[in-house]
Amino acid sequence: MLIKHYKLQLTTGDNIALHDITPQIESYLSESGVQNGFLIVTSQHTTTALAINENEERLIEDVKAFLTRLLPPQAAYLHNDIHLRDCPPDEPENAHSHLAAMLLGSSEVIPVSEGRLVLGRYQSIMLYELDGLRERNVSIQICGE
Amino acid sequence: MLIKHYKLQLTTGDNIALHDITPQIESYLSESGVQNGFLIVTSQHTTTALAINENEERLIEDVKAFLTRLLPPQAAYLHNDIHLRDCPPDEPENAHSHLAAMLLGSSEVIPVSEGRLVLGRYQSIMLYELDGLRERNVSIQICGE
Amino acid sequence: MLIKHYKLQLTTGDNIALHDITPQIESYLSESGVQNGFLIVTSQHTTTALAINENEERLIEDVKAFLTRLLPPQAAYLHNDIHLRDCPPDEPENAHSHLAAMLLGSSEVIPVSEGRLVLGRYQSIMLYELDGLRERNVSIQICGE
Repeated sequence: MLIKHYKLQLTTGDNIALHDITPQIESYLSESGVQNGFLIVTSQHTTTALAINENEERLIEDVKAFLTRLLPPQAAYLHNDIHLRDCPPDEPENAHSHLAAMLLGSSEVIPVSEGRLVLGRYQSIMLYELDGLRERNVSIQICGE
Repeated sequence: MLIKHYKLQLTTGDNIALHDITPQIESYLSESGVQNGFLIVTSQHTTTALAINENEERLIEDVKAFLTRLLPPQAAYLHNDIHLRDCPPDEPENAHSHLAAMLLGSSEVIPVSEGRLVLGRYQSIMLYELDGLRERNVSIQICGE
Repeated sequence: MLIKHYKLQLTTGDNIALHDITPQIESYLSESGVQNGFLIVTSQHTTTALAINENEERLIEDVKAFLTRLLPPQAAYLHNDIHLRDCPPDEPENAHSHLAAMLLGSSEVIPVSEGRLVLGRYQSIMLYELDGLRERNVSIQICGE
């Protein structure tokens, strides 16, 4: 079985931002030559997440509003008491981002059949930036034949 | 390594409905002959989800109540302004369903050992319909020897 | 392809408790000899979850506070009417734990490259005990070459 690793680097948007990375993943899949197998996509950060949903601009605004309501950035979080932690003083106050990442999850596994991702018509693989903007890495591992 | 694809089709229940698909998955596993490996189960829709939990009828009612409270269907969502989007006028108002799917996740990977799913005693693989009823597809990929 | 199964057993903390199991997983990986492949980590219980995030003690307290606010243990849940269910009378009242497990997810898949887990600097693999303390099992399957 062929196992290939790719690293996708991207500059994300401000605060909460959703990035559809399906096209880049499809191009790695094509490059790998794998026809039958699966693909493991993982976020490499604790304040980003990966999830599959519809890439529709108004829905993306709903996502931002929902996460902000569920986890208000300005609420009191112990993790945000930077002076009480053993870390640099310019550490961001981002407990809400960690909690959102925990809920959303940091990996997706997608089957590959006949050289194509097995995804439904409206499914896009989205990187959720939860504390942007930043330089971020996504790991893509393609396994198969 | 053997890689086999199956597609499970089912008609789901109304609004939010949980469907225990463990028996069907076990029968695909048996048919595949795989003794040692793993199984990738993925929802093919943006308003369904997959999660593993206990199939207990009163807990399922709790799930429905919790999701409805967390994401009220009648709240204001931008995605539900159908007339402002480029889509058919009979598009369903289902932003809450997309957001729930995003939180619950759309895939599960389950190890297989000695021809059996490696699951705990109370663990069932559940398809979460979040905007039913509909005809739905679940992809099951079985990998191993 | 080599496929190896390991079972990690641990005694968890009280109520909600997060356990960083990255060191144990790294030692299984080293023992397996796999250099290139991936690793499937699954919770074997319906009131535990697996997620990857930062192991920072104040953030862990934020996690506990957030889950308790989102899913209050003392709220009314149908699953907690033990006398109406077909189960032993000493069954715990833990609907909130099941619902949290459902949101957090029960598995993680992590790529392995050059004999190491492909994880970002602050990423730890955490078992979330949501109804402790208990004896718990985590399944670790390592696949690769």
